[in-house]
Amino acid sequence: MAVLDPAEIAKTYRDEIRDEIRRLGEPLVLAGFLAAEHGPSKTYADYTAKACSDVGVQFDLRQVARLEAEDAIAQANADASIHGIVVYYPLFGPEHDAYIRDLVEPAKDIEGLHSFWARCLYQNRRFIDAEKRLKAILPCTPLAILKLLEAAGAFDATAEKPLAGKRATIFNRSEVVGRPLASMMANDGAEVVSFDVDGAQLFRPSETGVPGADTHRPPRPYDVSESTVDRETALRDADIVITGVPSRSFPPVSPDEIKPGAICINFSTIKNFREDIVERASVFVPRVGPMTVTMALRNTLRLHRNAQLIRPRAR
Amino acid sequence: MAVLDPAEIAKTYRDEIRDEIRRLGEPLVLAGFLAAEHGPSKTYADYTAKACSDVGVQFDLRQVARLEAEDAIAQANADASIHGIVVYYPLFGPEHDAYIRDLVEPAKDIEGLHSFWARCLYQNRRFIDAEKRLKAILPCTPLAILKLLEAAGAFDATAEKPLAGKRATIFNRSEVVGRPLASMMANDGAEVVSFDVDGAQLFRPSETGVPGADTHRPPRPYDVSESTVDRETALRDADIVITGVPSRSFPPVSPDEIKPGAICINFSTIKNFREDIVERASVFVPRVGPMTVTMALRNTLRLHRNAQLIRPRAR
Repeated sequence: MAVLDPAEIAKTYRDEIRDEIRRLGEPLVLAGFLAAEHGPSKTYADYTAKACSDVGVQFDLRQVARLEAEDAIAQANADASIHGIVVYYPLFGPEHDAYIRDLVEPAKDIEGLHSFWARCLYQNRRFIDAEKRLKAILPCTPLAILKLLEAAGAFDATAEKPLAGKRATIFNRSEVVGRPLASMMANDGAEVVSFDVDGAQLFRPSETGVPGADTHRPPRPYDVSESTVDRETALRDADIVITGVPSRSFPPVSPDEIKPGAICINFSTIKNFREDIVERASVFVPRVGPMTVTMALRNTLRLHRNAQLIRPRAR
Repeated sequence: MAVLDPAEIAKTYRDEIRDEIRRLGEPLVLAGFLAAEHGPSKTYADYTAKACSDVGVQFDLRQVARLEAEDAIAQANADASIHGIVVYYPLFGPEHDAYIRDLVEPAKDIEGLHSFWARCLYQNRRFIDAEKRLKAILPCTPLAILKLLEAAGAFDATAEKPLAGKRATIFNRSEVVGRPLASMMANDGAEVVSFDVDGAQLFRPSETGVPGADTHRPPRPYDVSESTVDRETALRDADIVITGVPSRSFPPVSPDEIKPGAICINFSTIKNFREDIVERASVFVPRVGPMTVTMALRNTLRLHRNAQLIRPRAR
């Protein structure tokens, strides 16, 4: 067993990002919009500031009233000197926030939250152009979790289906983490049980593959179905257990519930595993935060590269 | 005082719609997708079926598992014989449903729920082309409420600002009704207090008008600000009171709370006004449903007209 510190893994990625930024020859600028004065979104903004200074990205964090966020985003979209935009949610409720998320220009959406990127993800479109030069952006936390699985030895990046044969159980099916994560893992070959308050769903690699054009179905290499599997069974069978339940009423996962040698990752701000989970898990990752913000910086570079490919600049 | 039956008002609109459809020379076809077997969404689907048969629209209602909705929408988008699509929400939670809403092709979104139409609304863009031939679509319930205000004599459709000088109080700030409604009313000249669990906001016609291009702010002829006004004051001052609170813990609005002669409209499935509100209100509209579905049919015609203008067909 081992506790895996995401900050350690993030270091390697940040070294690469720092090198690449140095070679760019121009400063990368991020604009961040924060409405809260404390709480998780403030913490995440502070994280971003530290990570940016670590890799040499200029971070312009502005405190805005939530009702000003819309105008601030419009200005940042139009400002050619700003390469990426981060909005610290929640601002309003989930529906109003979903509206705001789609106001960020996808080409500046380093968190990959715009519905344009979501559609790429759910349809497993990894490039946004026919020539396959412009890479699609993935949401930061799900991407961070895949990278942590790779660091834990459960994700074979050289294989066509890096998670083939793996079973995973995820507690959380939010639109920003749980649902994209389940799809990405199924796209990569895993069989995933996804729990939320609404019950369980099963995400499986599709047996039929990409359907024919006659069905008009968007290409999607996984199937989803409602499931009646319970926590006990899903945990007992899982090679990978991922939790993101921001509620104290969720009973923390205990060692006797999991398969010996399972990889356990918690991305909730609350402890969703018992401390002694390490007695039975092969790898335990107690938090994801440092990797999430690192993936946002990686996305910034990716979007910058896309922009250069679309509009090469004279140096 | 008078109780205004929305079915009566809807009748006039339906007569116009029926005439126009008869003149089209081709059948209009709507596809509806329903996951629930009972409850409000089933009721609304039944309403749609009746209204369609009333005006001569072919309504193809299909029961789908919620996980099949996405594929069904993709097929209906691609099917040239389908003119409009209605999805009966909720399917999942608010965030996942927001994703689904944006999968409906805006040109077939007769409910005006796509974020493309929402952006038109919030920026008060009433046409989607430079030549101002293609009209934007408004969401059905807010549009229905404006038409009911017109029927009640509070909305002067011939004026530049049909609600100029009016004060309104709305209990509900959802993305599908309350927030768009508050914006539309402010766009039309009213001063609106908007309540939800999160507190009050004030929507006012903008004093500065459409801002200059230098601000990069999208044109928006109203201002929104957080407000500390309480229920008592907001109700006492309102010429128009509109309620949509789907909770029994909301104390129904009583006659002594409102301004004498106020117009009162309830669009919740729960009674948000006391029965004796009619003793002080000038007009009371206890429900909106029949007008909502009528506006969906009106939108269907509008979208069909837009399509004809884009691609005129040989007869």
